Amino acid sequence: MESLSSYSESLQKHLQQTVVVKEPMNLYEPLSYILQLGGKRLRPVLTLMTCDFFSGSYQKAMNAALAVELFHNFSLIHDDIMDNAPLRRGRETVHERWDVNTGILSGDAMLILAYQLFEGYEPKMFSDLAKLFSTTALQVCEGQQYDVDFETRDDVTLPEYIKMIDYKTAVLIGAAMKMGAIVAEASENCKNNIYEFGRNLGIAFQLQDDYLDAFGDPETFGKQVGGDIISNKKTFLYLTALEQSTPLEASELAQLFTINPKDPSDKIERVKSIFETSGAAEATRQKIAYYTEKANNVLSEINISEQKKSHFREFGDWLMERTV
Amino acid sequence: MESLSSYSESLQKHLQQTVVVKEPMNLYEPLSYILQLGGKRLRPVLTLMTCDFFSGSYQKAMNAALAVELFHNFSLIHDDIMDNAPLRRGRETVHERWDVNTGILSGDAMLILAYQLFEGYEPKMFSDLAKLFSTTALQVCEGQQYDVDFETRDDVTLPEYIKMIDYKTAVLIGAAMKMGAIVAEASENCKNNIYEFGRNLGIAFQLQDDYLDAFGDPETFGKQVGGDIISNKKTFLYLTALEQSTPLEASELAQLFTINPKDPSDKIERVKSIFETSGAAEATRQKIAYYTEKANNVLSEINISEQKKSHFREFGDWLMERTV
Repeated sequence: MESLSSYSESLQKHLQQTVVVKEPMNLYEPLSYILQLGGKRLRPVLTLMTCDFFSGSYQKAMNAALAVELFHNFSLIHDDIMDNAPLRRGRETVHERWDVNTGILSGDAMLILAYQLFEGYEPKMFSDLAKLFSTTALQVCEGQQYDVDFETRDDVTLPEYIKMIDYKTAVLIGAAMKMGAIVAEASENCKNNIYEFGRNLGIAFQLQDDYLDAFGDPETFGKQVGGDIISNKKTFLYLTALEQSTPLEASELAQLFTINPKDPSDKIERVKSIFETSGAAEATRQKIAYYTEKANNVLSEINISEQKKSHFREFGDWLMERTV
Repeated sequence: MESLSSYSESLQKHLQQTVVVKEPMNLYEPLSYILQLGGKRLRPVLTLMTCDFFSGSYQKAMNAALAVELFHNFSLIHDDIMDNAPLRRGRETVHERWDVNTGILSGDAMLILAYQLFEGYEPKMFSDLAKLFSTTALQVCEGQQYDVDFETRDDVTLPEYIKMIDYKTAVLIGAAMKMGAIVAEASENCKNNIYEFGRNLGIAFQLQDDYLDAFGDPETFGKQVGGDIISNKKTFLYLTALEQSTPLEASELAQLFTINPKDPSDKIERVKSIFETSGAAEATRQKIAYYTEKANNVLSEINISEQKKSHFREFGDWLMERTV
């Protein structure tokens, strides 16, 4: 079994060899640019690791892994346009460095290139990978649409919110792992269980991201603490607090989520206090634990050695290790 | 063999059954909207017709045909955003009726849905169709990028222009036909020849569109005659005229293509006159004839009955029948 960094180095090498800038430059340069911004390469590494764990040659999963990374970056380019985001990983976003039209078209090309990466697999495997990829990609689009829709709705339910983060984030984690299992020709049972493992871990991860946005340590949390509160984002914390707090606090919270004060520190403190007193913070911690446990339960049903399972568990712990 | 209208009616029925509006509505409604705007359904009808001609059941080609139509409409949604176009087929464009973000995301979903339509074919055919689809889709993106790039370049060559219309328009016509041949399990030779037939006819068709934009009959030409001249579009006519006219006329023409007069009628008349005197009009007519003949030559090499060939030829004539 390889170390996480060796998967990621192999992937990096493969990316350099595979994604080459060619004519028309204005189409392919932005694509190469966003891929070079780096990031954790979490998803493709999961594909390689899963293939390895199911006794496949992880080199064989390299193109599937890269397809996942290309898809993820395609969605970042288009999402950044929709969010009007100036920065991505501390650098200019594609539509900011070039323009919106370039972002649209380069993103489109990237989605198609992702599909092309499956072409090296024999027809049955190609078909299995591409089908999973399409299902997942469509769910990611639906998740993004729900996220957009929720911005202007004031009746979003908790199950709807979970479905949104499931589609927008978690299914791609599950699919990344399942693709590794497909390339390793694992059993149906293994493929489905590893998908559910990744998906539940993905939901836990996203809920934790919501939680840390309010309660994270500014020293270790990668983003601005309080960012979701500043931008009035209806996260799991917010929706739970609305449900669980007193009518008076609920209406205060709803009101706080309509304002954009220049200095947001008072707002952030008051919102966090309602998150605590309403029990929303505790409910979110429980929900994170629930999905993490669900992931681990699915894992124990998979027919691989205890040693390999413990590696997946360690990976899960590593992913979730950022603490309050 | 079926009539063109019966292919198109079957396709319409299949479209209604297959593309259903579901949640999230804001993702799927725009997609259904643009498909309902109609249009000639030229590309998918070609897929069905070609399958039929190569002795396949054209019903079997229905999903491949619909994939081609979905892809074409995906590219219309995104191109309309890039061109800032308010109208499509006389109705509001998607980004105009909803907004740019909706156009981006619904377009993305449509591209993925197109791939999903191949999933009903057995793995080898699925793989053949999806590969051809990806190659073609990427070329269409490259063609669109070249088209955008050409707007700000003043050194576009004629071969570059032909490559642009080949990628942006012609390869999809070729691919639509080849997909019909793939579903009919035609020979390699037949598949490749029918692709070249469609592609050359596609180039001829686009050149004719350029030509008719200047010299078409306002009564029968679907669009505003002179539209390309008004918007200073560097078409085959323009590029040829620049090359073939006297230095004085060339510089006059270049200068005319920098202005946007309120009443464009004088500009249009002068430009058309330079198109004629420079020999560009005649050269364009010859080029149209050249690609039409090339298409017919490829057709004669295909191993199908003369009767079927004559149907393809009739179709080509029908496509090109709009006259000066």
